[in-house]
Amino acid sequence: MEKGLLIVLSGPSGVGKGTVCSVLRQKVPELVYSVSATTRKPRQGEIDGINYFFKSREQFQEMIANDALLEHAEYVGNCYGTPRDFVESTLASGKDVILEIEVQGALKVKEKFPEGVFVFLLPPSLDELKSRITGRGTETQDTINNRMTVAVEEMSLIRHYDYAVVNDEIDAACHRIQSIIVAEHCRRDRYYSHLADLPAATEKV
Amino acid sequence: MEKGLLIVLSGPSGVGKGTVCSVLRQKVPELVYSVSATTRKPRQGEIDGINYFFKSREQFQEMIANDALLEHAEYVGNCYGTPRDFVESTLASGKDVILEIEVQGALKVKEKFPEGVFVFLLPPSLDELKSRITGRGTETQDTINNRMTVAVEEMSLIRHYDYAVVNDEIDAACHRIQSIIVAEHCRRDRYYSHLADLPAATEKV
Repeated sequence: MEKGLLIVLSGPSGVGKGTVCSVLRQKVPELVYSVSATTRKPRQGEIDGINYFFKSREQFQEMIANDALLEHAEYVGNCYGTPRDFVESTLASGKDVILEIEVQGALKVKEKFPEGVFVFLLPPSLDELKSRITGRGTETQDTINNRMTVAVEEMSLIRHYDYAVVNDEIDAACHRIQSIIVAEHCRRDRYYSHLADLPAATEKV
Repeated sequence: MEKGLLIVLSGPSGVGKGTVCSVLRQKVPELVYSVSATTRKPRQGEIDGINYFFKSREQFQEMIANDALLEHAEYVGNCYGTPRDFVESTLASGKDVILEIEVQGALKVKEKFPEGVFVFLLPPSLDELKSRITGRGTETQDTINNRMTVAVEEMSLIRHYDYAVVNDEIDAACHRIQSIIVAEHCRRDRYYSHLADLPAATEKV
């Protein structure tokens, strides 16, 4: 069976990763969402096991000690991590997995899964990003400034990614990501399994 | 202005390149079709300047002498070539160009345009390919055998291509190619032009 693709959706804080990922999951129900573990407090409406596995610091440390996390990182005072077993078993069953994570976490995943598809979500402009971060209305001015500084640093890490998708309009961004997934399944270097019934053709490949 | 993409659609004789290309052009009218020059006789319904530029041997030799062809190749007794000016000026104007050519011609284009997107159209199986070649009903048994031998040799050249698209069903094949085009436009290494308004972010890129 062909292994699934690991799609890693990342980008600066405030760019809209969560919204895009959520709409994408509605459009592509067969895409399996990798639920992250985090020590940050739930925001209104977030559900444990659906949006995140909400953990205490102690629980999170125990997962690290048990090597149960594919990556983990601290970001603005909170820990985020990706439970390893879930991702690996889903890929092995032939299903694609989407992982929505912060930029630093994505780069750690890349060390372990260089064959993953790394998608960087971009704001249409830095002004637009600032307005989105401000518009959340839940942060102080210091926090906003801090987040913008972090976001600009994160943006420079785009060079490690395979694709750059502008989040100008959610449906357009989702369509681009859907296209990337279809295209990656057609990549010739991923494609040898299909060629099994073309023996004469594959001898020299 | 961002340069257009050169999409090179190729694959073994009989796989259905022409049909797929034709349906794709209907679905994506903004995709500019690169009309090839050929010395082969028009088939019923083919129009000069639309399907091919039909040329005599002498005219074709003159184009070669004038370096007016991006590539040219002889295939089953006929010459095929790609007029250079048309492709280059269309790409420069920011439009994508699709080039539907034989496998050997595609590889010559790759020498001059390594940044092109090389898509190899595959039959669902060799049996299916043979049935398609036979089903045309216009060839002798010797010609069919010859075409199958050539097709299997051509198939081994898939290793030089970026994408492998199975032509199991025309609409499905077209959807895959459309996705490849969208995805290639999102490739981070093609994407620096958009980042021009993100100076702080691109300094380190």
